[in-house]
Amino acid sequence: MIYFIFCIHNHQPAGNFEHVIERAYQRSYLPCLRIISKYPWFKVSIHTSGFLLDWLCMNHPEYIELLSSMKERGQVEIMGGGYYEPILSVIPPGDGYDQIKTFSARLKKVFGVDVKGAWLAERVWEPHLPYLLSKAGIRYVVVDDYHFIKAGLKREELGGYYVTEDMAGAIRVFPGSERLRYLIPFEPRERFIEHLRWLEQNLEKGNAVVYADDGEKFGIWPGTYRWVYQEGWLEGFIKGIEKERHWLRPVTFCEYMEREPPIGRIYLPTTSYMEMGEWSLPSSASFEYAGVVEGLEREGRDEIRRFVQGGIWRNFFAKYPEANWMHKRMLMVSRYVSEAMDDLKEYRLYASASRYLYMAQCNDAYWHGVFGGLYLPHLRAEIYRNLLRAENIVESMRSDRKRPLFKRVDMDGDLSDEVLIGTERMNLFFKPSEGGSLVEMDLKPLEINLLNTLARWQEGYHLKLKETESQPATEKAVSIHNIVRTAKVGELCFDTHRRVSLMEHFIRNDESFDAFYTSRYTELGDFFNGTYHTELTDSSLILSRKGTVDGLQVRLTKDIHPTGASTFVVSYRIENLSERDMDCRMGVEFNIILPGCNGRDCVLRAIPGGGDLPVDSHGEVEDVKGIVLVDRTVPVSFTVESSAPFLLWRFPVETVSFSESDLERIYQGSCFLFLFTVSLERGGVMERSLTVAIDREGG
Amino acid sequence: MIYFIFCIHNHQPAGNFEHVIERAYQRSYLPCLRIISKYPWFKVSIHTSGFLLDWLCMNHPEYIELLSSMKERGQVEIMGGGYYEPILSVIPPGDGYDQIKTFSARLKKVFGVDVKGAWLAERVWEPHLPYLLSKAGIRYVVVDDYHFIKAGLKREELGGYYVTEDMAGAIRVFPGSERLRYLIPFEPRERFIEHLRWLEQNLEKGNAVVYADDGEKFGIWPGTYRWVYQEGWLEGFIKGIEKERHWLRPVTFCEYMEREPPIGRIYLPTTSYMEMGEWSLPSSASFEYAGVVEGLEREGRDEIRRFVQGGIWRNFFAKYPEANWMHKRMLMVSRYVSEAMDDLKEYRLYASASRYLYMAQCNDAYWHGVFGGLYLPHLRAEIYRNLLRAENIVESMRSDRKRPLFKRVDMDGDLSDEVLIGTERMNLFFKPSEGGSLVEMDLKPLEINLLNTLARWQEGYHLKLKETESQPATEKAVSIHNIVRTAKVGELCFDTHRRVSLMEHFIRNDESFDAFYTSRYTELGDFFNGTYHTELTDSSLILSRKGTVDGLQVRLTKDIHPTGASTFVVSYRIENLSERDMDCRMGVEFNIILPGCNGRDCVLRAIPGGGDLPVDSHGEVEDVKGIVLVDRTVPVSFTVESSAPFLLWRFPVETVSFSESDLERIYQGSCFLFLFTVSLERGGVMERSLTVAIDREGG
Repeated sequence: MIYFIFCIHNHQPAGNFEHVIERAYQRSYLPCLRIISKYPWFKVSIHTSGFLLDWLCMNHPEYIELLSSMKERGQVEIMGGGYYEPILSVIPPGDGYDQIKTFSARLKKVFGVDVKGAWLAERVWEPHLPYLLSKAGIRYVVVDDYHFIKAGLKREELGGYYVTEDMAGAIRVFPGSERLRYLIPFEPRERFIEHLRWLEQNLEKGNAVVYADDGEKFGIWPGTYRWVYQEGWLEGFIKGIEKERHWLRPVTFCEYMEREPPIGRIYLPTTSYMEMGEWSLPSSASFEYAGVVEGLEREGRDEIRRFVQGGIWRNFFAKYPEANWMHKRMLMVSRYVSEAMDDLKEYRLYASASRYLYMAQCNDAYWHGVFGGLYLPHLRAEIYRNLLRAENIVESMRSDRKRPLFKRVDMDGDLSDEVLIGTERMNLFFKPSEGGSLVEMDLKPLEINLLNTLARWQEGYHLKLKETESQPATEKAVSIHNIVRTAKVGELCFDTHRRVSLMEHFIRNDESFDAFYTSRYTELGDFFNGTYHTELTDSSLILSRKGTVDGLQVRLTKDIHPTGASTFVVSYRIENLSERDMDCRMGVEFNIILPGCNGRDCVLRAIPGGGDLPVDSHGEVEDVKGIVLVDRTVPVSFTVESSAPFLLWRFPVETVSFSESDLERIYQGSCFLFLFTVSLERGGVMERSLTVAIDREGG
Repeated sequence: MIYFIFCIHNHQPAGNFEHVIERAYQRSYLPCLRIISKYPWFKVSIHTSGFLLDWLCMNHPEYIELLSSMKERGQVEIMGGGYYEPILSVIPPGDGYDQIKTFSARLKKVFGVDVKGAWLAERVWEPHLPYLLSKAGIRYVVVDDYHFIKAGLKREELGGYYVTEDMAGAIRVFPGSERLRYLIPFEPRERFIEHLRWLEQNLEKGNAVVYADDGEKFGIWPGTYRWVYQEGWLEGFIKGIEKERHWLRPVTFCEYMEREPPIGRIYLPTTSYMEMGEWSLPSSASFEYAGVVEGLEREGRDEIRRFVQGGIWRNFFAKYPEANWMHKRMLMVSRYVSEAMDDLKEYRLYASASRYLYMAQCNDAYWHGVFGGLYLPHLRAEIYRNLLRAENIVESMRSDRKRPLFKRVDMDGDLSDEVLIGTERMNLFFKPSEGGSLVEMDLKPLEINLLNTLARWQEGYHLKLKETESQPATEKAVSIHNIVRTAKVGELCFDTHRRVSLMEHFIRNDESFDAFYTSRYTELGDFFNGTYHTELTDSSLILSRKGTVDGLQVRLTKDIHPTGASTFVVSYRIENLSERDMDCRMGVEFNIILPGCNGRDCVLRAIPGGGDLPVDSHGEVEDVKGIVLVDRTVPVSFTVESSAPFLLWRFPVETVSFSESDLERIYQGSCFLFLFTVSLERGGVMERSLTVAIDREGG
């Protein structure tokens, strides 16, 4: 006799496109639940993340009704978790606690249930989590058998749940089967019955097996709609189990816990499911790790493989500075919200501010694996939108918000101070330790960060692409993990620095546009990534650095001075401190993305004159005095005017990344390089200034 | 040019024997520092754990003076950490914070330093620690290169420090070299110079190498005194470096941090040094892991080995229930102390209670690797002594402490309630879920737990012993990790259950003493580890269970009733509920250790009559009515008198474990089995009672 726990996790990130969610509903959530509802003995445990639950309540109450009735008759167990599917270990414990409690309260209201179990987002486990979970009323979570195997256990010992704890705050942990994740719904149901039969015979401890994975596998993943519904896999699967009910019993988590004691005590390492270990490693290590795992599998060296482990989720913050920045901004807003709690409670705004904050903690946009995640501009934009909404609510309490604010703070936890210049309508974050660059530029009323561009980082799978020969895609539903990538992605270019703004490059006069675009140019100076000295006055930020350009001593000063609620001037001063003449170009780099850019609903205008240029066009324009980037979807524009003419280079920053089905080329923003000729005798000085305005066009 | 950071960690567990500490001082701490002091250019970073520092201040002020003078002239950097060397991730964050702050304050007083760095006990890292460390004023810690390699980095990228953070609380982390840990002081100094030369040529990031390890390697580890001092290794090593100072520069951590920026950002996994990964795994996994690592090393498969990882430190709590119990008792006392903080502050007792609590957080006794640790009864006794001291201080505030206390509480975080019976002089902890056994029995005024016996658990290295043929020990200093174990340890017996008390075994009438002693007997019943029903009345705890004995239905009830401040009665009732006759023996098991037992300063007396028996004697005594165990070193005795005569079996519980030099057989307590004949017709009932007294003899 063996118990079978079937657990489905349905999730949509906050801010996903309506049509994407609707399609997922029609092709996966609804048909899946309808079929299961036909077999009341087939017990399931279901987690629906908070954003999706709210969407379903609003848009498809019939789904909620069906789910409620299944819960009423004891077929379905409703699971909780963090409201907006945060990675619990990287959000402030108070926020995590509140997200779990508010989601449990919501589920109580919708379904009348007392939530016992939590879905752990991406099964990202850290050993100190049990304390938080147990205090938030959670009695069990489900992770992967992988977690347990890395703790030294064998598959045969995983036929049930274990108890773990932190500071004596204890919870139960269930191991979800990796084998079943690859089997359901991709292989014929006979394979499932065989596997469970094998387990029934061979389990040494416990008498249960757990399947726990994404509901989107039933209809959304490539090829699965046809296979699961049109070709009847799901119904066949359930009917197949029906015949075996004398030894194979579907139960929910709680039913199992009531019947059976824990197998023992365990302390799981900091890990997630197996694949996350590969994704979170640095690119080259990720590539090498994948090779090692493949090799061990091929050779059947399971005695080694059980001890092989990849990276940890937090390392995405080291791998992607953009994810790190977004995360640290989230922590900053979290501090704002909790500091303002007393004031906000009075104004009944706390709930609203914290809700936006929690939405900004939704995990998807902070990382990248087999799905787009971080690579999707609309998800990152949603994070900034929610952060700025929460921040705007807190700031609405400030009495002095009309006065520009200058503040030094180590915002991103790198032990170097950043500088925030805040006006009524704008946040500017500068990073003196990284080329004195501008890394975030928010237009507060519109809740957008214009510097939300992702650089073209090299991924482990880019290295693999070079190795693999293209193969035709197959028609049959195959596990997403095994899909052979086939897209023609053209030439890949990789960046060595973040694609932010106000970085100064020094290049030879004859350096080519193509070389810059493909990151194959020669950087003559050490300014674009060097550390600047910071000076704050009442009205401006002065960044200065003594560095070298092609061996010459050079001092570069940039004085940033806000001139209005959404305008500022950058005054450059370049001094040749050496004994020789200096003759090269200085390029000031901007990377900008506006809401409409991704759909090409932006245009670029060069000043003076010239017509509208596509925002994703390449190449150079001579003798320009400025640029305007106009969004046709929301009333925002970005304008830079220069004190002197320059040569403009521009190109779209496009990444190539994995998605569910294939490789995708994604527009991440537009790069603009303002090139000034620097021809200075020894001791010579050159000055230029740029006036930047972000706001409604002409506003 | 390469920087060399030489970091020594000197540590003695709270409660270690005076003569052991004195020997370590004379043969390691003192000679090592004296030699280093002769070369003022040879910079070192030194950590001395709090208990040892206090001991040195008291017993060897000349050492403190020498260290101070070396600090004054800039040769030595003094490092901090948790006062009593706790594993920070498993003690309450408030305690951890306070331990770091009070130790920094102590170091400020002794040496006048502002502590910047922390030694992390056993380098047990968890990703959430940076927040605590940074808030406690710590700017850097040193761990192992192993931690970084498991995060996906390569050795060539580890020539400096990285920045890591939790919740934006950031610190610097240095990678200590594993290669140097095996090289210093075990290999000729030329090997060191060669290795550093290689690094100087091959480091891709940074320009430093860190040695950070135990100071006891310089004189205390087997063979090292002769090699390091008498044969002059240490002086030769320093002189060897002196010749290379044009490219090899000794610096302290802080000097290096001032000169060089961080290499980058990193998130380290939950891990410790390489060897800890093997030790913390379950025994069989530990054995298999060691084999895998050895095999990969032999085959030079470093591309695989870099991804191979063992267990995590917390798993010692799953591996050793005794460690878990001690740890959860510590957490309980920590809650007591912090709850009583306000009262205690008034009475100026808080500092004293928390100091004992922190001493009880000293890591050594909670785990086992290449050193004894958990296997050493005097270290475990010291934990209980300090816990009971702290608890006694808190209880001295209670007004109702003369009344017996009965309390249900899940003390050990296994989601089943334990029962505490507390009197003015005694704590009794029962575990209904594990045979209704008595797992802790404290005599409060003497601050001892009489049930502090460690069971004979099977270790991974026991499995290896079977494989390895004995080889003669070598004379030369060899790394402790490579020592071939040679002791003749006799036959090994392993236990399947904790060696605690009031467990009931049912065995055949002809079962032999030897079979019980060697754990090869047949357990007829399911009572010794089954779950009991719990009932609490005003004056007693009633544990009952319906179970089976050799297929017969049996009900066993034990009624525990305190009769005085340090006496209690256990009334047994055995009912044969079945249709057949019952004819076997019931053995009530006690395992007791008194302070004098380990040195054989205890005697055993059988009641009635009979002379003194050695406490570690084996075998059986017939027709006994009770036993008395008398300690000759402290005024305590343990007495059990029975309502009816019984057959007594007793034997010393002796473990066989690794120590620095070899395998050791250690006395952990004495096992007593009180055997009663159970001859019951169907429906028959039998009653027995045991009167237990713990206190001064005759008290």
